[in-house]
Amino acid sequence: MKARVLEIRKGVLNKNDEIARGLRERLHAAGVLTINLVSSPGTGKTALLQRTLRELREQGSSVAALVGDLATDNDARRLAEAGVPVKQINTDGRCHLEAQMVSDHLSDWDLDRLDYLFIENVGNLVCPSSYDLGEDLRVVLLSVTEGEDKPLKYPNIFNSADVAVLTKMDLAEACEFDIEAARANIAAVRPGMRIVSTSAKSGVGVQEWLSCLAEEKQSRLVGV
Amino acid sequence: MKARVLEIRKGVLNKNDEIARGLRERLHAAGVLTINLVSSPGTGKTALLQRTLRELREQGSSVAALVGDLATDNDARRLAEAGVPVKQINTDGRCHLEAQMVSDHLSDWDLDRLDYLFIENVGNLVCPSSYDLGEDLRVVLLSVTEGEDKPLKYPNIFNSADVAVLTKMDLAEACEFDIEAARANIAAVRPGMRIVSTSAKSGVGVQEWLSCLAEEKQSRLVGV
Repeated sequence: MKARVLEIRKGVLNKNDEIARGLRERLHAAGVLTINLVSSPGTGKTALLQRTLRELREQGSSVAALVGDLATDNDARRLAEAGVPVKQINTDGRCHLEAQMVSDHLSDWDLDRLDYLFIENVGNLVCPSSYDLGEDLRVVLLSVTEGEDKPLKYPNIFNSADVAVLTKMDLAEACEFDIEAARANIAAVRPGMRIVSTSAKSGVGVQEWLSCLAEEKQSRLVGV
Repeated sequence: MKARVLEIRKGVLNKNDEIARGLRERLHAAGVLTINLVSSPGTGKTALLQRTLRELREQGSSVAALVGDLATDNDARRLAEAGVPVKQINTDGRCHLEAQMVSDHLSDWDLDRLDYLFIENVGNLVCPSSYDLGEDLRVVLLSVTEGEDKPLKYPNIFNSADVAVLTKMDLAEACEFDIEAARANIAAVRPGMRIVSTSAKSGVGVQEWLSCLAEEKQSRLVGV
């Protein structure tokens, strides 16, 4: 029974990978940098994204966001306040987004007019690591309130990500957060990964995060 | 393909439920109250459990703990400091514990000598909701740093739990946590659920939490 489940799951994954590949080609052809944000529930994906969408828009970039949740459209409503196109993907209890869901929700957007597409995944530090959504950049967020050990305990998601963003830095002192320990733990599972420390509340590190996005767009989509 | 996957998953779940049922009978016969702790990564399951194990032991209760993690045995080592039997269940990347894993790890413990068995699930607010581990009490933890909206966004896990424990109350002010909103959101998905507000750091609410456990043991295992 176990073997059959694994085999079929692998089939589902491969199917997902195929759809993700097509999606990535479509997005690249349109010159869109696509960012998949993954983290625990409550790490602050929506808060950072709210600020990111607003700042990019003010800089003249064209941005949009897809937001995955098991239930409610709270996050989509929060993000829509930034005045950019936002769509909710309701996973109906499922613990992760899949490439097909992303593809379905892009169908009526003109990708050629877009610079950045953000995908806020379901809050889950385990399952989303297995699903390619066609993104260029997988960004794992870790809040200072969660503890420095999370990269070691959830290695798959840190290992599969391209950038780590530390969030809620304004609470670092109150939480006695040891940033050097966190950096060392991230480096242990993903040597050399870029780490940006931010607070969506105080604004610390937001410019560095925006520069990181601009550099990635430049290096990954140049000549496309 | 989808239908087959679902069908087989249902099979896995039913098999799990059967094992859980047998486990629950065994634990009840031995007079053990079993508590399954579920939450996001970093909510503070281990910190609360450390304190709970120590206090119960000092009160003369016989306690033990199983700790699920995708990787590392950090939590088991932290809990073992309380001087009680602790075993790590390494899920090898899997996103939840299953009843068979619990059963396997109990095989060499004398359950008749135990009053309380705690099971610390993998940090994940989605998948563990579907897996009965033979527990009497499913306790969902929510830290003040995660935001008041989580019960609405992860309704399955709150709905399937018996008790909600708010953690890190010492950070409530710094996080501008609105406890009334959190209570209302919990009540919206699980009307009447008992809610205990705690801080493992300051000790706030720990006695109320211990009383809650004693009352549950009394009411659920009376006459056993």
